[in-house]
Amino acid sequence: MVTAGTLLYEGKAKRVFATDDASVVKVSYKDDATAFNGLKKGQIIGKGAINNQLTNLLFAYLGENGIKTHLLEQLSERETLVRKVDIVPIEVVVRNIAAGSFSKRLGVAEGEELPYPLVEFYYKNDELGDPLITDEHALILGLATRAELTELRNQAIKIDRLLQQRFLASGLILVDFKLEFGRTSEGEIILADEISPDTCRLWDSETRKKLDKDRFRQDLGGVEDAYQEVFARLTSLREGQSE
Amino acid sequence: MVTAGTLLYEGKAKRVFATDDASVVKVSYKDDATAFNGLKKGQIIGKGAINNQLTNLLFAYLGENGIKTHLLEQLSERETLVRKVDIVPIEVVVRNIAAGSFSKRLGVAEGEELPYPLVEFYYKNDELGDPLITDEHALILGLATRAELTELRNQAIKIDRLLQQRFLASGLILVDFKLEFGRTSEGEIILADEISPDTCRLWDSETRKKLDKDRFRQDLGGVEDAYQEVFARLTSLREGQSE
Ligand SMILES: Nc1ncnc2c1ncn2[C@@H]1O[C@H](COP(=O)(O)OP(=O)(O)OP(=O)(O)O)[C@@H](O)[C@H]1O
Ligand SMILES: Nc1ncnc2c1ncn2[C@@H]1O[C@H](COP(=O)(O)OP(=O)(O)OP(=O)(O)O)[C@@H](O)[C@H]1O
Ligand SMILES: [Mg+2]
Ligand SMILES: [Mg+2]
Repeated sequence: MVTAGTLLYEGKAKRVFATDDASVVKVSYKDDATAFNGLKKGQIIGKGAINNQLTNLLFAYLGENGIKTHLLEQLSERETLVRKVDIVPIEVVVRNIAAGSFSKRLGVAEGEELPYPLVEFYYKNDELGDPLITDEHALILGLATRAELTELRNQAIKIDRLLQQRFLASGLILVDFKLEFGRTSEGEIILADEISPDTCRLWDSETRKKLDKDRFRQDLGGVEDAYQEVFARLTSLREGQSE
Repeated sequence: MVTAGTLLYEGKAKRVFATDDASVVKVSYKDDATAFNGLKKGQIIGKGAINNQLTNLLFAYLGENGIKTHLLEQLSERETLVRKVDIVPIEVVVRNIAAGSFSKRLGVAEGEELPYPLVEFYYKNDELGDPLITDEHALILGLATRAELTELRNQAIKIDRLLQQRFLASGLILVDFKLEFGRTSEGEIILADEISPDTCRLWDSETRKKLDKDRFRQDLGGVEDAYQEVFARLTSLREGQSE
């Protein structure tokens, strides 16, 4: 029997626990870091606390701007209560600037601005290495309905616009990011999982310095500092900032 | 200066020569066989002659059924005159049954029937290994216009229906195949390249025995026999066949 406190799922970055409400789970963020589908492993000290708080800050901001999210209540630096959902097994990636696998697969130089935000779907399946899929693949695999794919795309584009503004106000360029959505027991699709330097590419808007997990992936050093820098910028009002 | 007979392009399977008409090229089919983006190399004796004649037979059949193709005139067992086109750098794949990279990438067992014909686009770029792309990628890379993608998809579905019928009448199941299209000087999109056991997966409709390049890819033996079997079946009327 699942009782409050039962570990439901341990992922690479978070643990998910049952609570005494079947529609609510507790997420606990870890300092563990992995890259290249788990091939590279390490720790980023303080990451769990930073990603938890940043995710909540950004989900709260998105919520104020009309995006439905799983966020319920932050419990501590690392722990948050969220609505339990059935995660749609599609990783939704939005790209504003070419980088990472997009650059590599398609031969587009990193840093090249895309003409408009590009939404990509990846089949969330660790065994298969999260392959890129088309809408047709998603439908044939039964991952989502046509209407849900449209909903995912529309939500992703709205979220991109909102996040770009929020990050830019903190001196950060949102290069690309990954979202996960889930179905509530009422069948509604809401934003779940996290938004953090683990799941976003963030560059300093003046120097274009990388302030995200690419520092870990590419052994660039200063990984902890980068996460802290992003946290500091998003949580403090900077000089000359009106918001 | 390009004069008649000048080798314009040597590919893995064919040579393309200029003729004294700038809008016409001569294609010459080779026995060379490659797989896995050129990593595996060999020869399939007689393949050039078979693929040339099969392509022409199938292009003529498609032409009679309303599909515009590059076919002009067969010159010899291995050589054919075709309309010169600018090849659209998109390999259009149609799948009726799961196999090959589709099965591997998405974890779908080979042989599983798809609910409807699936059209996939791959970026025709040897250096990048012909990666799968979405419509959005094709647009951003400038490979084709939105209208052209729709045209490619519609043509591919029509061709699939016609080919399935033709192959089945010869006791062959059309599992999947790859098409290339090109733009004429008038900007019209027509079917180009080839349709052969190099570019189709064909299974015996009773035994499901593989009669295509997978015998070479997977070292199954009887490669030449398979090509000859397909050729014999498509060029001769079989007993009990009405067509
Ligand atoms: N509101 C939610 N309800 C249920 N599960 C959730 C919710 N939000 C996120 N999850 C899931 O929690 C799991 C743990 O997150 P974590 O990021 O550690 O996973 P992961 O190792 O990245 O693996 P995955 O590839 O499954 O994301 C993930 O499968 C994620 O999809
Ligand atoms: N009507 C045509 N006009 C111009 N080029 C053509 C035409 N039909 C086919 N081609 C091109 O001829 C080239 C030679 O064919 P071949 O199959 O040997 O190439 P390949 O080694 O498979 O490489 P590729 O990946 O370019 O197809 C290909 O690039 C093909 O796209
Ligand atoms: Mg995760
Ligand atoms: Mg070819």
